Amino acid sequence: MAANTALVVSAHSADFVWRAGGAIALHASKGWEVTVVCLSYGERGESAKLWRQPGMTLDRVKTDRQGEAERAASALGVHDIQFWDLGDYPLTLSQDSLFRLVDLYRAIHPKFVLTHSTRDPYNHDHPATTDFAQHARIVAQAHGHNPEQKVLGAPPVFLFEPHQPEQCAWTPNVILDITPVWDKKFAAIQCMAGQEHLWEYYTRVGLQRGVQGARNSERKMTYGEAYEAVFPHVVETLA
Amino acid sequence: MAANTALVVSAHSADFVWRAGGAIALHASKGWEVTVVCLSYGERGESAKLWRQPGMTLDRVKTDRQGEAERAASALGVHDIQFWDLGDYPLTLSQDSLFRLVDLYRAIHPKFVLTHSTRDPYNHDHPATTDFAQHARIVAQAHGHNPEQKVLGAPPVFLFEPHQPEQCAWTPNVILDITPVWDKKFAAIQCMAGQEHLWEYYTRVGLQRGVQGARNSERKMTYGEAYEAVFPHVVETLA
Amino acid sequence: MAANTALVVSAHSADFVWRAGGAIALHASKGWEVTVVCLSYGERGESAKLWRQPGMTLDRVKTDRQGEAERAASALGVHDIQFWDLGDYPLTLSQDSLFRLVDLYRAIHPKFVLTHSTRDPYNHDHPATTDFAQHARIVAQAHGHNPEQKVLGAPPVFLFEPHQPEQCAWTPNVILDITPVWDKKFAAIQCMAGQEHLWEYYTRVGLQRGVQGARNSERKMTYGEAYEAVFPHVVETLA
Amino acid sequence: MAANTALVVSAHSADFVWRAGGAIALHASKGWEVTVVCLSYGERGESAKLWRQPGMTLDRVKTDRQGEAERAASALGVHDIQFWDLGDYPLTLSQDSLFRLVDLYRAIHPKFVLTHSTRDPYNHDHPATTDFAQHARIVAQAHGHNPEQKVLGAPPVFLFEPHQPEQCAWTPNVILDITPVWDKKFAAIQCMAGQEHLWEYYTRVGLQRGVQGARNSERKMTYGEAYEAVFPHVVETLA
Amino acid sequence: MAANTALVVSAHSADFVWRAGGAIALHASKGWEVTVVCLSYGERGESAKLWRQPGMTLDRVKTDRQGEAERAASALGVHDIQFWDLGDYPLTLSQDSLFRLVDLYRAIHPKFVLTHSTRDPYNHDHPATTDFAQHARIVAQAHGHNPEQKVLGAPPVFLFEPHQPEQCAWTPNVILDITPVWDKKFAAIQCMAGQEHLWEYYTRVGLQRGVQGARNSERKMTYGEAYEAVFPHVVETLA
Amino acid sequence: MAANTALVVSAHSADFVWRAGGAIALHASKGWEVTVVCLSYGERGESAKLWRQPGMTLDRVKTDRQGEAERAASALGVHDIQFWDLGDYPLTLSQDSLFRLVDLYRAIHPKFVLTHSTRDPYNHDHPATTDFAQHARIVAQAHGHNPEQKVLGAPPVFLFEPHQPEQCAWTPNVILDITPVWDKKFAAIQCMAGQEHLWEYYTRVGLQRGVQGARNSERKMTYGEAYEAVFPHVVETLA
Repeated sequence: MAANTALVVSAHSADFVWRAGGAIALHASKGWEVTVVCLSYGERGESAKLWRQPGMTLDRVKTDRQGEAERAASALGVHDIQFWDLGDYPLTLSQDSLFRLVDLYRAIHPKFVLTHSTRDPYNHDHPATTDFAQHARIVAQAHGHNPEQKVLGAPPVFLFEPHQPEQCAWTPNVILDITPVWDKKFAAIQCMAGQEHLWEYYTRVGLQRGVQGARNSERKMTYGEAYEAVFPHVVETLA
Repeated sequence: MAANTALVVSAHSADFVWRAGGAIALHASKGWEVTVVCLSYGERGESAKLWRQPGMTLDRVKTDRQGEAERAASALGVHDIQFWDLGDYPLTLSQDSLFRLVDLYRAIHPKFVLTHSTRDPYNHDHPATTDFAQHARIVAQAHGHNPEQKVLGAPPVFLFEPHQPEQCAWTPNVILDITPVWDKKFAAIQCMAGQEHLWEYYTRVGLQRGVQGARNSERKMTYGEAYEAVFPHVVETLA
Repeated sequence: MAANTALVVSAHSADFVWRAGGAIALHASKGWEVTVVCLSYGERGESAKLWRQPGMTLDRVKTDRQGEAERAASALGVHDIQFWDLGDYPLTLSQDSLFRLVDLYRAIHPKFVLTHSTRDPYNHDHPATTDFAQHARIVAQAHGHNPEQKVLGAPPVFLFEPHQPEQCAWTPNVILDITPVWDKKFAAIQCMAGQEHLWEYYTRVGLQRGVQGARNSERKMTYGEAYEAVFPHVVETLA
Repeated sequence: MAANTALVVSAHSADFVWRAGGAIALHASKGWEVTVVCLSYGERGESAKLWRQPGMTLDRVKTDRQGEAERAASALGVHDIQFWDLGDYPLTLSQDSLFRLVDLYRAIHPKFVLTHSTRDPYNHDHPATTDFAQHARIVAQAHGHNPEQKVLGAPPVFLFEPHQPEQCAWTPNVILDITPVWDKKFAAIQCMAGQEHLWEYYTRVGLQRGVQGARNSERKMTYGEAYEAVFPHVVETLA
Repeated sequence: MAANTALVVSAHSADFVWRAGGAIALHASKGWEVTVVCLSYGERGESAKLWRQPGMTLDRVKTDRQGEAERAASALGVHDIQFWDLGDYPLTLSQDSLFRLVDLYRAIHPKFVLTHSTRDPYNHDHPATTDFAQHARIVAQAHGHNPEQKVLGAPPVFLFEPHQPEQCAWTPNVILDITPVWDKKFAAIQCMAGQEHLWEYYTRVGLQRGVQGARNSERKMTYGEAYEAVFPHVVETLA
Repeated sequence: MAANTALVVSAHSADFVWRAGGAIALHASKGWEVTVVCLSYGERGESAKLWRQPGMTLDRVKTDRQGEAERAASALGVHDIQFWDLGDYPLTLSQDSLFRLVDLYRAIHPKFVLTHSTRDPYNHDHPATTDFAQHARIVAQAHGHNPEQKVLGAPPVFLFEPHQPEQCAWTPNVILDITPVWDKKFAAIQCMAGQEHLWEYYTRVGLQRGVQGARNSERKMTYGEAYEAVFPHVVETLA
């Protein structure tokens, strides 16, 4: 039987770690095949530490960032990580890239999709990525696009926690208990040598969401990852 | 082993039928014990047809409304229906009533709570009921209130669909598939002889939410009931 | 044939002048009977200039404010002005007052209702008045309240422009052309001797809304009064 | 004397039927000349049933969709229907198309404009169409664009009801009574052979908006069509 | 010369520590006189640990909580701490209490006011406190209230960070650098023996707001405290 | 020592006068060097009066508009005004222009940035300008963009008051006292011969914001300019 699949669309090559590492590791640990698309390396805008090294070049930054991301993906149990190298700050998103993402949706038929918040005044690439990921999802549902293929269903989309949630009009309505896989997420975080200042920041985020998860349920949990679901949750029980 | 329990707090004695009949019947059919509190009979503000009968009195309206609600509750499989007779248009909510509802929370420890939307420009009693139900839930969590009792946990609260959703700033984020129990909900609806003009209206609501439920998932379903969850959903998987 | 009627519910005895004087004069000039209810005189919180007079007393403030309001009402062509003297800062609103306002709705069956914005961080009485006026409107629609009377229909409610609109989450969706009656509104404004600092302020408001009215239509107009309609506008043409 | 005119900008060739058929038929029945622009046929994304036929091609889908739309337009009394064939899923909107729409605004000087909601997480083409239609309206107001032509005034813009209103942050503030022309709208709906599953859905939408229209007024009406007005309504009376 | 003054209105006797301890210590360290009003002890709803002790009584809880709060206040350099003992879960707010708070505003003429967020689905007392504190501020501005006293000016109001910010529709627009007084805030936090589980939580809050403060400026800072300003900031420079 | 600098990004060549003239003159009067970028002349969409002159051409409009803007800039004490001539209605914004603005950010390192509101249903160029100005600010913060240059810090961004604030979802949270430089702003306004109908409009805006500034503080002031700050204000005191 085919494995369950999920798709993560990440603007830069580290976003999936900070923002969705728990969800990835958790589902991977249950046998899911999680595909991560990194639209860019964050080579210009999210690699400050590397650029402080003398003689640094764009290619070396990309190579280093790819290595970090691959090691993190491995720590999380990612099934497939793809680097599309579309440039960052700004990210350049063409119709060809859109159809490439549509092809990927059609190839893996993800059961859910993870991507960025729809607004972010601190980052122009993140909302652009979300719009792109949602647009591709809709095209993948179109019967007239490559009509010989099976169309995509309606996988739910969950939006990552942005760096400063309240400024991004992002409101979490799902908290995932990632306590069982925190060690894996933290191992992946530690692969991000270029952004060491964020390690503690996102550890604290995990702990705060853990406390809040416990507060919103009767579950014992220590680490959480929060998401905003875009679509209504269709259920067969309210429990 | 004790049955699972749920609590429905309804401003008037028919609200639980139109707005939550599917959820009640569905959980009852799985062995849940659902308690319904009707804070009033809707005797002044939601009984127009009865008042058109000559010689009608407030007491007769209440008696008729109670009968209708009891028959509907029976059709849905309600475990316990309580009529608090607090008056309607306006509903009068005292601290005594608040503590009475706290006692009920503590007595049944519901796994979830259903009540009205937080705003409604067409109805003053509905938002008042929600504020009251949420306030009681919070007091029931307080260790210093009747400290010898077990405090309430953190049951999720789901808000009913109001009559004109967009005017009430109510956004559904949960759609419950009530197809398996639609016959029971419709039987309960037909007990509401005094509001026959609403039978078709809420049948259409059920069908529209059914289409939308199917559209937001890959589930085949015909009838839906939509809710707005107040609190984040704490989960162990995103699937 | 009975005249058309309208109802204005004003927290303090000057609010109806600044905020709705144009609408009142305009409809009065067309033969409408406009009733104004002043829940208080604004005697404590909106009479700074009077209180600066030596030896001023609460009763003298009320008397002066009533005189001003009566003269303004006369300038506008108000049919009936009522002073309920419920106190201000804070306004005290009992169930008796609620039923008194219900009686008034039932007595005049207004074709539309004007009252304050639903939020105002600068004024506690204004939102309280709106909640009260809307609540009474709903009770007046209840068939079981004084069932021998004719119930109220569904008159639209328009919310006045508050002093600092953007801080009150008030968004105008109706702009009334009050150019033909500006002279009457300004005459009424000049009756408010105790708040002379506001004369120019509200003249400028009228001019700005006039420019905006012209900008949103092809109408030539100089003075406008803006409102937020609470309910959808039911129409037989979009022109 | 020149007839009154209106403009409908529809992303796909069926949208104007479901969403604005009543408004079109109603104004046409009063002698208005209504122009409908279909930016695409919805040939890829909204023609599932056609694509299930063996050997279907893009051209055949377009031809079928155009036929359906023309028959529907005829049933509604549309004055002019234009098919711009700009592609769908995604819709491709160039500056040339923008200026073409500006020309159309300048040619017909519509008294009002109908188009899609500004947000829709289920459809990428709908919000793009609205942005495009509003942008063209603004350019048509610019005195320096083809300065020899008469500039456009300020026709109001009304946004169609989207498929899942609450998810689109769309709030109706206008309900049009379409009872007198429902038979025409339903005849037009029945021309949409490719989307038969939506016939009942949009019939129920018409009935629900009809009930709500009656609830928000004292008008007897059975079928309604709801819109969100973008701009304030400039009026000479509040009645 | 009179010292500068500030007023903190806290629903329960620990809130001022977690939520405003930094602001209090910072201003106290500059010679400000900060007055803290604790409307209740949080004796019923926020003293779980104390209630787990055998034989605990309401009076003992209050005594313990008062002691903790006094020690914390001392650590922060609070000028005056008042315990109004109005009960919690629910908080009971009468007109007498309102006028008592008005008297306090008039007595100290605070330069700014700190209180809770305006919404909180987890806590009923917090929004009630804010409404009360803002209402009293407005009454204190009324010339007719105790006309022999000097009226209050327009001190800005800043809303504390609630426990789960995004669920409370609270958006920080001010971040205060509390790095210089963090040791005092942490000392005060440690006085709250009854809520030890929150020590680390609010330390992490301080660190996250510190990172965000640095991110939104070019200031080096480690600990921050975030607030939502209710009113526009009136300034003489944008720098 | 280098002067303080500020950057104003204006869609059309008059916007900086109406919307930010006070801020510019105020800071210039204190020795700041303010740079103004006019992305277009507003030659097509905001020059109605010029286009009414017989024989007018696009080039003459641009020349006239540049002259007006230069005289206004001079009256305000602008340090550097740049005309990028990118076209208006629609404004055309390429990646080259984006990098040009990034270069400017890097060249002057502004202490704050002024630009348009993020939404405006009356104007398509204004929100496009804001998105562009904010995007360039973010790219200017990227270490990998021209890595030999010093990266931009985090200058606050303040959004101008749009023509119809409430329709643009713009909420002022900063009011600048421009009383000391009103004469300069009014002199600059009078340079805008082509838009004389706006002189009084924006004078009244200045007076209304002046009254509101006084109302929100204890400052005596006559003229104000209101802004919406995009980012939280990082402070070392709340006074």
